Amino acid sequence: MMNLGDSPVRVALLGCGVVGSQVARLLLEQADDLQARVGRPLELAGIGVRTVRERPGIDPSLFTTDLAGLVDRDDIDLVIELIGGIHPAQELVLAAVQGGKSVVTANKALLAEHGPEIYHAARLADVDVYYEAAVAGAIPIIRPLRESLVGDAVTAVKGIVNGTTNYILDQMHTHGVSFDAALADAQQLGYAEADPTADVEGHDAAAKAAILASLAFHTRVRLSDVSCEGISSVTSEDVAAAESMRCVIKLLAQCSVSPDGTLAVGVHPTMVPLEHPLAGIHGAYNAVFVESVNAGRLMFMGPGAGGSPTASAVLGDVVTAARNRVRGVAGPGESAYTSPGITDPARVVSAYYIAMVVRDEPGVLSRVAEVMARRDISIATVRQEQTRDDDASARLGITTHRAFDGDVRAAVAELTAGGDVLGNVRVLRVEGA
Amino acid sequence: MMNLGDSPVRVALLGCGVVGSQVARLLLEQADDLQARVGRPLELAGIGVRTVRERPGIDPSLFTTDLAGLVDRDDIDLVIELIGGIHPAQELVLAAVQGGKSVVTANKALLAEHGPEIYHAARLADVDVYYEAAVAGAIPIIRPLRESLVGDAVTAVKGIVNGTTNYILDQMHTHGVSFDAALADAQQLGYAEADPTADVEGHDAAAKAAILASLAFHTRVRLSDVSCEGISSVTSEDVAAAESMRCVIKLLAQCSVSPDGTLAVGVHPTMVPLEHPLAGIHGAYNAVFVESVNAGRLMFMGPGAGGSPTASAVLGDVVTAARNRVRGVAGPGESAYTSPGITDPARVVSAYYIAMVVRDEPGVLSRVAEVMARRDISIATVRQEQTRDDDASARLGITTHRAFDGDVRAAVAELTAGGDVLGNVRVLRVEGA
Repeated sequence: MMNLGDSPVRVALLGCGVVGSQVARLLLEQADDLQARVGRPLELAGIGVRTVRERPGIDPSLFTTDLAGLVDRDDIDLVIELIGGIHPAQELVLAAVQGGKSVVTANKALLAEHGPEIYHAARLADVDVYYEAAVAGAIPIIRPLRESLVGDAVTAVKGIVNGTTNYILDQMHTHGVSFDAALADAQQLGYAEADPTADVEGHDAAAKAAILASLAFHTRVRLSDVSCEGISSVTSEDVAAAESMRCVIKLLAQCSVSPDGTLAVGVHPTMVPLEHPLAGIHGAYNAVFVESVNAGRLMFMGPGAGGSPTASAVLGDVVTAARNRVRGVAGPGESAYTSPGITDPARVVSAYYIAMVVRDEPGVLSRVAEVMARRDISIATVRQEQTRDDDASARLGITTHRAFDGDVRAAVAELTAGGDVLGNVRVLRVEGA
Repeated sequence: MMNLGDSPVRVALLGCGVVGSQVARLLLEQADDLQARVGRPLELAGIGVRTVRERPGIDPSLFTTDLAGLVDRDDIDLVIELIGGIHPAQELVLAAVQGGKSVVTANKALLAEHGPEIYHAARLADVDVYYEAAVAGAIPIIRPLRESLVGDAVTAVKGIVNGTTNYILDQMHTHGVSFDAALADAQQLGYAEADPTADVEGHDAAAKAAILASLAFHTRVRLSDVSCEGISSVTSEDVAAAESMRCVIKLLAQCSVSPDGTLAVGVHPTMVPLEHPLAGIHGAYNAVFVESVNAGRLMFMGPGAGGSPTASAVLGDVVTAARNRVRGVAGPGESAYTSPGITDPARVVSAYYIAMVVRDEPGVLSRVAEVMARRDISIATVRQEQTRDDDASARLGITTHRAFDGDVRAAVAELTAGGDVLGNVRVLRVEGA
């Protein structure tokens, strides 16, 4: 990488939507401060967009629809990628890196899918690829994992990393509304998109889980390694059951070391005890909880989305990459020297909540207990109550101590096959206090 | 700085007490992981101590009482300073930096007093000076402020950065015990030292406030700039008053921009509403709350002290500095291009709680209200109750909206001089929700 002499650090911005327009605005409005922090001016040299149209306050001559041409320009030092998606973001980011430009991106899907190739290319080209904005918006979590905790052994990362689903679940708890009503409300407020699939089915959180797991465990976890369960199946009954257990349901992105040394990485609606710090994260806020051998339990919380918070994270990366550039260096990258493998889904360990409607007659509970015991599932609590509509059935709510996921599923299947379980089976994970 | 070829990164450790012995242990036990993360072996090349004695698991030949000689050794790449205090730490750190060694330190007192000279020397020598462990133990807050939030405009940092005082205040609230009893308890548990002055009088927190303010506002704040009020004056009555207002008392290290653009940096026992995230930080935990223009409100929490958590923060810095060293670079340093000046203590703005025993007769409350109004102090709530022992006096508890500290002090002085106030005057800050 070349030292820049006294010239400005020239920045190309790809994408000028909700986040991109904030980044452009801040680059222009805070130019003096940014220059003082970097040591050279940060010059917005071009903005790649799909359609050129007027944007207030931005010189129209900066816009181009030729994104590849913009990235290839010799005078560009740093590329901010905010177009999202895999293509053409992947090609543009790789072209930038291979052309000796540092890259700042908020593209979680791209990194979860193609991070390893991109980091490798960055290492070869001795440039920075920074992506603080890709996970949990403005919350600094990437840099703390990559640098602050790099001398420690992380054992688990548990995060509320999707504001849309947290808002929906929070509404279901606070106002007792259904999932559909809470989703409609979130859509009206702009917290959820017209097609909410990526958020509510957990895909967005799964990409972030892959990125967090890779960093925390010095390995390469891809999106396809992440088990994923969304919140569209969460019912008002689940919410009521959680409350009766002094819990709230949160969509947690988790990565942790399993007993066999492999990594369990997943996104699941999870019952979180009220005393747990993650239970207090409301609305569209995000939080990431980290457990490590020496540091103990840490939590990072803040706004998980939105134009300004995400732009803040992007600009922090831009200033740090530009500072490196001015000094002719690149910062330390990720390390990925471990290959623990991904835990077989059946061998994932968790505490569980199991609800089911059973025949209300003597012997059922003892058979349930027997099936659980035979599969080494230790029962923590049992709660049985009459169903409203029927004298012949009862609702059973069981919480277990930590057990293998496969054993829990098999026990439920056996009970169902045996005729004791009449239906309405629900299995949810329960987080420790 | 020289690139190291294939040789190990050689580390000198100064100090082998609670934190130092943990650092030494982890450098030895986790050598393989650290090597994989750094890309070269991290070799513990010498340990400077006051008195050489056997330490289990550590090669006795590593120890020396010649700390200056150890720092001067040509084969040392990185110095970890854990001896604390100003002398000889200052001389050793400067010698290391000037000798081209990177430094990792947990020495808040040194940095609050002499940080500017040390950072300047590091810049000239192109080496790293990292100090994540100096503030809030294992919680990553230095790196997030220096790098992640460097593209944003921080407006306030508010932290519980002293575990001893948080434990004591927590005990006073939870168990209704006096300050003296809670302190004795903390001493017995090892949370407080035999001479607890530095903790309970806020000096430790003040040093951390200076470091946080310097980073967050890109300036140089020294310990002498920090106004400081400890918790030894906090009474059970204060605690009860806080609880009646749905608050808890926390010792907050605060830095924020005052209306006149100067910086207010102080440590004060403060009433924090229960809904505020800082209110939920219990025991010896620490937390730092950051407000910025674009990111919004962020909070970082975790263990604030202890050998292992502090060692985790030290080792994170060691690995990052060593990674830089292996690549022949130094990371970006602090910027300190602003000189906002320190807010005149009388012009510091806060909401206040004012308690006083007044004569219980008609007209007193109206005179109190008149004095406050004349000084532009807007009253939020008033609570008056009979004192237990006396019919002629009443206890008045007033909360104000945001007002100048000097005006509040002057109003109280005027009321006292006027004879309405009989005594027991108490003024505490109140944090916004």
